[in-house]
Amino acid sequence: MSKVAVFRKEHFNAAHRLYNKSWDDQQNDAVFGKCNNPNYHGHNYDLIVKVVGEPDPATGYVIDLKILSDLIQQHVLAKFDHKNLNLDTKEFAQLNPTAENIVIVIYNILRELINPKFELQIRLYETPRNFVEYPV
Amino acid sequence: MSKVAVFRKEHFNAAHRLYNKSWDDQQNDAVFGKCNNPNYHGHNYDLIVKVVGEPDPATGYVIDLKILSDLIQQHVLAKFDHKNLNLDTKEFAQLNPTAENIVIVIYNILRELINPKFELQIRLYETPRNFVEYPV
Amino acid sequence: MSKVAVFRKEHFNAAHRLYNKSWDDQQNDAVFGKCNNPNYHGHNYDLIVKVVGEPDPATGYVIDLKILSDLIQQHVLAKFDHKNLNLDTKEFAQLNPTAENIVIVIYNILRELINPKFELQIRLYETPRNFVEYPV
Amino acid sequence: MSKVAVFRKEHFNAAHRLYNKSWDDQQNDAVFGKCNNPNYHGHNYDLIVKVVGEPDPATGYVIDLKILSDLIQQHVLAKFDHKNLNLDTKEFAQLNPTAENIVIVIYNILRELINPKFELQIRLYETPRNFVEYPV
Amino acid sequence: MSKVAVFRKEHFNAAHRLYNKSWDDQQNDAVFGKCNNPNYHGHNYDLIVKVVGEPDPATGYVIDLKILSDLIQQHVLAKFDHKNLNLDTKEFAQLNPTAENIVIVIYNILRELINPKFELQIRLYETPRNFVEYPV
Amino acid sequence: MSKVAVFRKEHFNAAHRLYNKSWDDQQNDAVFGKCNNPNYHGHNYDLIVKVVGEPDPATGYVIDLKILSDLIQQHVLAKFDHKNLNLDTKEFAQLNPTAENIVIVIYNILRELINPKFELQIRLYETPRNFVEYPV
Repeated sequence: MSKVAVFRKEHFNAAHRLYNKSWDDQQNDAVFGKCNNPNYHGHNYDLIVKVVGEPDPATGYVIDLKILSDLIQQHVLAKFDHKNLNLDTKEFAQLNPTAENIVIVIYNILRELINPKFELQIRLYETPRNFVEYPV
Repeated sequence: MSKVAVFRKEHFNAAHRLYNKSWDDQQNDAVFGKCNNPNYHGHNYDLIVKVVGEPDPATGYVIDLKILSDLIQQHVLAKFDHKNLNLDTKEFAQLNPTAENIVIVIYNILRELINPKFELQIRLYETPRNFVEYPV
Repeated sequence: MSKVAVFRKEHFNAAHRLYNKSWDDQQNDAVFGKCNNPNYHGHNYDLIVKVVGEPDPATGYVIDLKILSDLIQQHVLAKFDHKNLNLDTKEFAQLNPTAENIVIVIYNILRELINPKFELQIRLYETPRNFVEYPV
Repeated sequence: MSKVAVFRKEHFNAAHRLYNKSWDDQQNDAVFGKCNNPNYHGHNYDLIVKVVGEPDPATGYVIDLKILSDLIQQHVLAKFDHKNLNLDTKEFAQLNPTAENIVIVIYNILRELINPKFELQIRLYETPRNFVEYPV
Repeated sequence: MSKVAVFRKEHFNAAHRLYNKSWDDQQNDAVFGKCNNPNYHGHNYDLIVKVVGEPDPATGYVIDLKILSDLIQQHVLAKFDHKNLNLDTKEFAQLNPTAENIVIVIYNILRELINPKFELQIRLYETPRNFVEYPV
Repeated sequence: MSKVAVFRKEHFNAAHRLYNKSWDDQQNDAVFGKCNNPNYHGHNYDLIVKVVGEPDPATGYVIDLKILSDLIQQHVLAKFDHKNLNLDTKEFAQLNPTAENIVIVIYNILRELINPKFELQIRLYETPRNFVEYPV
C-alpha cells in the first residue's frame, strides 16, 4: 500500500511579545522592532497539520481527520487560543514565541499523541505573508 | 460624470481584551467568554477602505490609491499596528475594542482626512469569519 | 447611535440536483445541463450572514457573533450540512435547490429567529465563482 | 416574487500603462509614478458581474450563470484577455486604462447585452488590494 | 539543466458517500458519521497537479500548462465533475471515495498519460481545511 | 538544533510576452498562443521565498523576515515590479520570461545574497492556477 499525506487546517488567535530577557531594551528594539511592544500585539494563527501514512484498506483513511481535529483542539488550541503566549502558557514562559519556536512546540506536543508509524509535519502561518514549517 | 467606488485593503496586527469595566468578572466572562482573557489575545486585522466619487477626467482616478494607502498607514496603522488596543491607544482606553467600535473609530479618523465630496465606508475583518462594516 | 453591519461566515457541504419535475428529460438537460445529473453532484457552500443594527453601548456588540454562529449551526447547518438537499430536506422536496432558492430559504429561516430590530442579509457561495445574495 | 442578486467571477490578464497624453513626462511621473512605465506593466484582473432580478419560478434562476459566463467571455474577455489595453483595444486607445475607467467600459459593454429588467453592477480587482465597483 | 516543478490548479464538483459495504449501518455510522449519509453529500474539489522536469530550452516550459489543463479536463474532470462518485464512476463503484482514494485514482489516471520523464504529484482539497497529497 | 523552514510572500506586477526569437510567427503562435501577443500582456506575480536553517537560540529566528523582505524588495521587486520583463530587464532581454525561467532567475539573484548555510527555494505564482517552484 502506498503512503498518502493528509492535512488538517485549524486556527487560533493569540497575543505575544518577542524579546530576549537577557538583553536590554535597546538591543531588543534593534532586533525585534515593533514586535517587542511591551504591551503585546497579536495574530490570527493558521495551523496546518500534515500526517503521512498508508490508508487503512477498511476505511480508506490514513487517519480520521475528525479525530485529528479533536486532538489538535484539545492539546494545541485549548492551550493557545485566545491566550497571551508569554504570560498564559508554560511553553513560552521562558521561550521567545517566534513562529519558529511555536511550530516546534506544537510539533512536540502532537508528536507524542500521534502514532509513531505516521510521519508528522506542521506549518504555521503567523500572517498570510509570514509562515514556517517544521520539520523540514 | 458617474460615481465609482474604489477600495484599498490594508492590514494590522494588534492585541486586545473585551470587557466592560463597570461589570464584575463573572458578568464579563458570561458575555465575553475567552475574549475577556485579562492577559489579552490578538488578531491580524484586515481593513478595506471604500471611497466613492467621480473619477477625475484628467487622471481617470477617483482618488490616487497610493495616497489613500499612505493616509491609512500614517493615521490608522501607525496608531494600531503591533499595539495593544486597550493599553497603547487613547481611542480604546475607555472604549471596548470590539470590531464594531474599532470600525467606527477608524471611520471617524479617516472621515476628517478625506475630502467631504467623497463618501467613505470601512470594512474590518477581525478574522476571515467575523467582520464588520460602517456606515451601513 | 449609528448602525453597524456585522458578518459571520459559516459553511456546509451538500449534494443536490437541479431540475423541474414538470419538464421532460430533454428540457431539463437543455436548461440545467450537467447540474441535472440524476445521481446528484455536490458543493462546499460558504454562507455569510449579515446583521445590521446599533451596537449595544454596554458591550460594543451589535449581536454576539458566537450566539449568531450557534443559531446558524442549529437552524441552518443542522438541516443542510452533509445532506442531499432534494431528498433529505423538506424545504427542497418540491423546490429546485438553485443557489437563489437556497439563499431565500436560509433567509426565511433566520429572519424568524433574529430580532426584527436587526436588518438581515444572506450571501451564499455555491462555488468561489458563483454566488448569490438576498435580499437586495 | 423577491429580487435576488447573482454573481459570476471571471478573470483576465492584461498589460497597461497609465498616463495622460496631454501632459509631459514630468507631470505623468508625478501623478502616475511607476504605473507610467512607457513599456507597460500588467495585472491579473478579477471581474465580478452582479445581476439583480427575480428568480424565474420555472427554473429557480435569476439568469443562467453559464449563459452569463459565456456572455462575459465573448464580449469582455475576448477583447481584453492577454491584451495590451492601450495598444490592442479601441476602448482604451484614447482613454486612460485606470481601474475606474475599465470598470465603466465593462459595465457599458454588458449593459447593452443584458436584459434591462435586470440591474447590473461590476466589481474589478486590479490587485487583491486595489479594486473598484460601478455603478455605486 | 535544472529541474523545475510546475503546478496547475483545476476543480470539480461531485457527490459522494463514505461507507464500507461489508460493515453494518452501526459500524459505518461509528466510523464515517455524517459522511455516511445514504443520500450522499458533496464537495467542490480543488485539484493541484504538480509536474517536475527540466524546462525545454526552446520554449522555457517544463510542460505547456494549457496542454496539461486539457489533459486533466479530458481524463479527470470529464469523469468526475458534476457526478456521483459512488454511482456514476467505475473507479469508485467498489472503492470508498475518501480523499485518499480519490487522489490515488487521479494520480494513476494521469501517470499513464504524462511522459515518464516527468515526476508527478497530486494534491486534492476536499474542503479548504481537509486535503491530501500523493505520492509523498 | 533542528532546522525550520521560514517563508516570506511578496508580489510584483509585470508585463511580458512569450516567444522564441529564432522561430517565425506561425511557430510562436502554435506554441505560445495568446501569450505571444506582440504588444504584451501582464500578471500580478506572487512570490514565496523559503529559507531553511536552524533558529538562532538568542532570537528564535532562522532569519529576520523583515530583513528577508527588504532583500527581496531591493534585489527582485526593484528590478521587476511595474516593468516589462522583455524590454526593461537585462535578465529577460534574451531569455523567454516563462514562469520557469523567472523562478530560476529570482533564485539565482537571491542565492548570492543569502548566507550559504541556508537552503533556499522559490515558488512563483503567475496566476492563482499556474505556478512553479525551484529548485525541486
